[in-house]
Amino acid sequence: MTDITQPAFKNILITGAAGALGNVLRESLRPYAATLTLNDREPLGEVRENERHFVCDLADRDAVFEMMRGIEMVIHLGGAPRENTFQVILDSNIAGGYHIYEAARQAGVKRVIYASSVHAIGFYECTQTIDAAAPQRPDSLYGVSKTFVENLSRYYFDKFGIESVCMRIGSCFPKPVDRRMLATWLSYDDFSQLCIRALMTPSVGHMIVYGNSDNSASFWDNTQAAYLGYRPKDSADAYRAEVYASTPAGDPRHPAVRFQGGQFAADGHYEDPQTA
Amino acid sequence: MTDITQPAFKNILITGAAGALGNVLRESLRPYAATLTLNDREPLGEVRENERHFVCDLADRDAVFEMMRGIEMVIHLGGAPRENTFQVILDSNIAGGYHIYEAARQAGVKRVIYASSVHAIGFYECTQTIDAAAPQRPDSLYGVSKTFVENLSRYYFDKFGIESVCMRIGSCFPKPVDRRMLATWLSYDDFSQLCIRALMTPSVGHMIVYGNSDNSASFWDNTQAAYLGYRPKDSADAYRAEVYASTPAGDPRHPAVRFQGGQFAADGHYEDPQTA
Amino acid sequence: MTDITQPAFKNILITGAAGALGNVLRESLRPYAATLTLNDREPLGEVRENERHFVCDLADRDAVFEMMRGIEMVIHLGGAPRENTFQVILDSNIAGGYHIYEAARQAGVKRVIYASSVHAIGFYECTQTIDAAAPQRPDSLYGVSKTFVENLSRYYFDKFGIESVCMRIGSCFPKPVDRRMLATWLSYDDFSQLCIRALMTPSVGHMIVYGNSDNSASFWDNTQAAYLGYRPKDSADAYRAEVYASTPAGDPRHPAVRFQGGQFAADGHYEDPQTA
Amino acid sequence: MTDITQPAFKNILITGAAGALGNVLRESLRPYAATLTLNDREPLGEVRENERHFVCDLADRDAVFEMMRGIEMVIHLGGAPRENTFQVILDSNIAGGYHIYEAARQAGVKRVIYASSVHAIGFYECTQTIDAAAPQRPDSLYGVSKTFVENLSRYYFDKFGIESVCMRIGSCFPKPVDRRMLATWLSYDDFSQLCIRALMTPSVGHMIVYGNSDNSASFWDNTQAAYLGYRPKDSADAYRAEVYASTPAGDPRHPAVRFQGGQFAADGHYEDPQTA
Amino acid sequence: MTDITQPAFKNILITGAAGALGNVLRESLRPYAATLTLNDREPLGEVRENERHFVCDLADRDAVFEMMRGIEMVIHLGGAPRENTFQVILDSNIAGGYHIYEAARQAGVKRVIYASSVHAIGFYECTQTIDAAAPQRPDSLYGVSKTFVENLSRYYFDKFGIESVCMRIGSCFPKPVDRRMLATWLSYDDFSQLCIRALMTPSVGHMIVYGNSDNSASFWDNTQAAYLGYRPKDSADAYRAEVYASTPAGDPRHPAVRFQGGQFAADGHYEDPQTA
Amino acid sequence: MTDITQPAFKNILITGAAGALGNVLRESLRPYAATLTLNDREPLGEVRENERHFVCDLADRDAVFEMMRGIEMVIHLGGAPRENTFQVILDSNIAGGYHIYEAARQAGVKRVIYASSVHAIGFYECTQTIDAAAPQRPDSLYGVSKTFVENLSRYYFDKFGIESVCMRIGSCFPKPVDRRMLATWLSYDDFSQLCIRALMTPSVGHMIVYGNSDNSASFWDNTQAAYLGYRPKDSADAYRAEVYASTPAGDPRHPAVRFQGGQFAADGHYEDPQTA
Repeated sequence: MTDITQPAFKNILITGAAGALGNVLRESLRPYAATLTLNDREPLGEVRENERHFVCDLADRDAVFEMMRGIEMVIHLGGAPRENTFQVILDSNIAGGYHIYEAARQAGVKRVIYASSVHAIGFYECTQTIDAAAPQRPDSLYGVSKTFVENLSRYYFDKFGIESVCMRIGSCFPKPVDRRMLATWLSYDDFSQLCIRALMTPSVGHMIVYGNSDNSASFWDNTQAAYLGYRPKDSADAYRAEVYASTPAGDPRHPAVRFQGGQFAADGHYEDPQTA
Repeated sequence: MTDITQPAFKNILITGAAGALGNVLRESLRPYAATLTLNDREPLGEVRENERHFVCDLADRDAVFEMMRGIEMVIHLGGAPRENTFQVILDSNIAGGYHIYEAARQAGVKRVIYASSVHAIGFYECTQTIDAAAPQRPDSLYGVSKTFVENLSRYYFDKFGIESVCMRIGSCFPKPVDRRMLATWLSYDDFSQLCIRALMTPSVGHMIVYGNSDNSASFWDNTQAAYLGYRPKDSADAYRAEVYASTPAGDPRHPAVRFQGGQFAADGHYEDPQTA
Repeated sequence: MTDITQPAFKNILITGAAGALGNVLRESLRPYAATLTLNDREPLGEVRENERHFVCDLADRDAVFEMMRGIEMVIHLGGAPRENTFQVILDSNIAGGYHIYEAARQAGVKRVIYASSVHAIGFYECTQTIDAAAPQRPDSLYGVSKTFVENLSRYYFDKFGIESVCMRIGSCFPKPVDRRMLATWLSYDDFSQLCIRALMTPSVGHMIVYGNSDNSASFWDNTQAAYLGYRPKDSADAYRAEVYASTPAGDPRHPAVRFQGGQFAADGHYEDPQTA
Repeated sequence: MTDITQPAFKNILITGAAGALGNVLRESLRPYAATLTLNDREPLGEVRENERHFVCDLADRDAVFEMMRGIEMVIHLGGAPRENTFQVILDSNIAGGYHIYEAARQAGVKRVIYASSVHAIGFYECTQTIDAAAPQRPDSLYGVSKTFVENLSRYYFDKFGIESVCMRIGSCFPKPVDRRMLATWLSYDDFSQLCIRALMTPSVGHMIVYGNSDNSASFWDNTQAAYLGYRPKDSADAYRAEVYASTPAGDPRHPAVRFQGGQFAADGHYEDPQTA
Repeated sequence: MTDITQPAFKNILITGAAGALGNVLRESLRPYAATLTLNDREPLGEVRENERHFVCDLADRDAVFEMMRGIEMVIHLGGAPRENTFQVILDSNIAGGYHIYEAARQAGVKRVIYASSVHAIGFYECTQTIDAAAPQRPDSLYGVSKTFVENLSRYYFDKFGIESVCMRIGSCFPKPVDRRMLATWLSYDDFSQLCIRALMTPSVGHMIVYGNSDNSASFWDNTQAAYLGYRPKDSADAYRAEVYASTPAGDPRHPAVRFQGGQFAADGHYEDPQTA
Repeated sequence: MTDITQPAFKNILITGAAGALGNVLRESLRPYAATLTLNDREPLGEVRENERHFVCDLADRDAVFEMMRGIEMVIHLGGAPRENTFQVILDSNIAGGYHIYEAARQAGVKRVIYASSVHAIGFYECTQTIDAAAPQRPDSLYGVSKTFVENLSRYYFDKFGIESVCMRIGSCFPKPVDRRMLATWLSYDDFSQLCIRALMTPSVGHMIVYGNSDNSASFWDNTQAAYLGYRPKDSADAYRAEVYASTPAGDPRHPAVRFQGGQFAADGHYEDPQTA
């Protein structure tokens, strides 16, 4: 997977670096940057060689601006990773996303790779094959916040020339565990490859790309992202028998089965577990 | 313009009712509602017959929820009407928009007519004719907030069945005053007509419609909104000689001339006049 | 409306000539044909000058073949005009349609104008603006039979060169009587104009055209039929106040309100009134 | 190919089960159903374990209704397999198709897999790459009947929720035997896989999918059926040298060479061999 | 039609100014330029006030370069006006077109209005409604040369920023004289209006626009040129009865009737009348 | 690669046969023709078995006509291979291209395979994935001449039935040597395969196909050429590490990095090295 002989970039920032996906990139991007700046609001463990740790909440504007100094490329994974109260979504994903882009503009960052999500388009039916130009159809407030950052990044490219690759990630887990993931699964290695292609491609402008592995079943037509040269190596098909054996068939008319967003499309209004 | 013999609705809420557009609807919607609930954070003057006034900031969640009780249809014009600091946009347009929709859901409102804007797609070139399915390309943080509410309204329809008509208003003023407005002008009467059509059409689902008068020049293909039956009666053409005589030609390569959003697309990052 | 000085055609056949639409054409096509052959399975009244009456059921293959001799152009309005048992649809519309086309082929007929219907695409939502290339979505067995003849006519053009204009007629009545007809209404005069344009246009190949008047509300984009030069003169808008006053608003989620086919899309499986 | 550990379905009906394709599925679907109900109007040979044989003509409505009781999924291969007189097409394919769907509705069948055909779109040129949304262009009365059942199945899904996968099968034979089949060939194994994918996919709604093997040459863009996850394993390419050596080049302007339907598109009106 | 109070431009060059269309613009553009530079290889008659005459062949590179000095806008009508030998097309239209654009580049011209033609897309069928993005399909060497200049102008915009409006003119004559012109006719007044709109629109980039009057029949979807604000005032419909009375119906399968280019699409290889 | 047992064609003409691509085909097409006629204006070396050499300039009309006698298929690689003065482009590519097609018409040639180029569409951005129907956007006079022959070939097919495959070749070299070629590279073997598929496919009509190897990165959607059955075997990916190590990253906003045409899109007006 390594297609460089010396680090291509001086300093890459990864937000949300303490999460599962952040951990994957913390390994796989090592050869690509002289310094990896890792950000999370949770502690990031031992500081390894060539790492810089920066613990802060993305809702903290000043901290984000300080962190962004000297950064060349950003991989933005941070923020609330699933449905939550509007206030949490507003602070972490919406204001947080704005802080990332505005800080990037002021710091002269060249490119942001953004972890968008299937939930930005989760209300399309599974039987609809959509491409990157299909109008957004979020399935949750979380999904609405993903469309917010996608549109914000478009604005920052059109007006300020900051490039972005918005990756609409399906289900990035060690392996697919339900029938829907036979279509949406993205392996960790393929996720790494996609991020590396997004970093290394000479000119990306503003692109939206779907993030799934080489699963035989898919909702998505990734043709418009062909220039990235992303070629997944893994496939959910290897787990199909296992998944079929361990999960029920489901009612084809149930929203969680019908829609691309799965359970997110079926859930009612989010009730805060702390207050409910 | 009146196509009813008795009020079609019991209670229509108009937000932003103290502004120019709010004033227009305060008159023209009178025959359509037994009660017009008028909202603004500014005083709304004398309470006329069949009016109910409700002064509050849309960022005030509880007030919005209280105001929404008993409402059947909403015309949502409120919020910051042009570029501003991110904090103002966040409070007034983003949180404010969410409060409107979530309160509408809980109050059983049937339909929201939302004043979106050309600035949701302001980075298309004037020479591109776009329709409602073209991906959003906001020209400002204000424009990004307009795309936020458009996508939020899509979510509330897909999940909860609350219908919305998002009107992407061009330039709604007494008359066109620059060359770009020869394409984007929306007269007050046509604006009223568009709102009335959006209220009266039997089923609207979730629609996006461009709001301009019958100007011979246009950036927009409104075909996908044909079912609304909106037919503008006014035209910026009547003002063309006047506009040509009083305004310069402009450089075709300048962003304010090239892009549909006009000056919004040309402006740099917003500097708060109070702090600058 | 007459754009000829002497009859353009020797012999035009009108099927279904005893019905309301047949009666309209019986008058308006008089100047266009030296002989008008009128067909129905019901009696057609007094034989007027230049008329030839031919009473037969379209399910009677031999009769149709005999009737077709010497015919130059066909206006095919015949068959069951609304939902019915499958057997009636099969005999009158499917077998009847085949008899018309196969007899036309053997008789050397140049062109068939076919009265298709909104019910060929009645399961599109009213908020969807569709053109002639949208895949068919019939709302009834009647509608399925309309798609059958549309496809049959495509086959007869591709293989045998017999031209067809398939007119997807909305609601052709003296005036619109419900809110849906504010979009779908086709006046008798506009219906006549459409038939005359379909007859007189030099080359039509195989075309599908929507048949509605100049109603401000519409589900249909008739751009692909522009070459016919059909320009409706009437509009349902003239009846809007009357319709609004006399009919209820309806629930936007009810199939009869949501779908282009109206009540046809809402009806369950057809129960034969004679056997039910 | 087997992706289940115990039969996924209680009772699958296969119509046309005595034909070549029926025989293929009789083997390959064995692990997927507790009972395989096999239907044909010809005898079906020895009744093997877990098989139920039901010999009847699909034109016999009452027999079809009786047969359908207790069925969960239908694979509908029955009817006239090539061009024939209109009466045969009408009885076997059109009325037969209706009987299948109406019986399925009354019996509570969940899904029908329908063997449609290249001849539903056989009048596209070979150089046109079409997808599932391209308007139908049948090349024969047989092809017209295929479009009839495709549209009928759309109706039964839109109104009654019965799911369908319409497989437009190219040339399903042991091996390709002419140059056109280098593009249209579907191997028996790939046919089986396609049927199994159509059965096992959680939600299919109403889909149209092209059925060909992994041939390097193709007329079809199957992107819109990506969610099925069909991945052919065989390829006509393995037979290319053999086919080139044994068949002539053909005139590129001859209809049988130009059109996707091949010889069907070139044949004139069908003459009944018994009466000719 | 005049929408200016003083000349908008200093010096407009009209090539082909001695032809019928040149004569039209010589009048109608008078108020728009302080100086009208008129070019033809034929004499241009008396030099009227504010006119500058420049007689040269467009194949004469040096003359074109000299003529272009000081020009602000170009209306390029010159070159062979119909099918001719390849050598004439090559010299007058292809080399001539290049001389115009390269001289314009070197002279700092802002915009070129180019008289392209229906013959650039003349091999589309009349029943196909095409827009400006449809691939070119020329019907003659003349038509191929029109596509050459269209593509050349695209290159000069993309690389050098010289704006162009390519007007695909249908049939610009005093009145329509055959049935095809009922669709393609462009009145002289509408031609003038189109040129004025192309001159006065603030930013045109590179546009292709169809040039026909408000004829009810049309082959063309001019939506993509909406920003120009061209609204034809005349219509071929006024001449329909006259044209029908004086011209035969034609065979719908004849190339001159079937194709948009009319007789150009029907003509065989051009034989030079002088050598034939 | 050989899919024939005896030569499929009597006499194939290859123009530009002394160039690198000509040399490739001189070998690989040997089994496909009883005679290979090789043309160039440079000497072609020793005449090998079954070869016929014909040295002439394509601008020499009479020579081209003489050369074309008895030819069945043409592979047209000749003409100026990169940007040059307009006069050279005019003579070699434009007039030369016309001579090839007109001679082919008069000689009864069946099909021309034309070496078009990425430079016919070189002003699309690398991030845009285009297909064969995208409007041409040449990046140079050379590119404009490529669009000229593409359109000329369309004309010769539409009017005279001469089939053409226009191959838009990316970068056909022994191996990719810069980062852009990771997307555009076409190996010599894949180039041969593409030409053979274009020769052997039964009916090609008029097709445009992109010519690149199986590179993971691509600007092009070749779906519309699927019927040719071209399946590249090589990939630029094998050279990625080498290319990344030996070439700089480039500025994503520089025209040579942003646009598909690379350096051609960045170069200014061509200055003749002889006169500069």
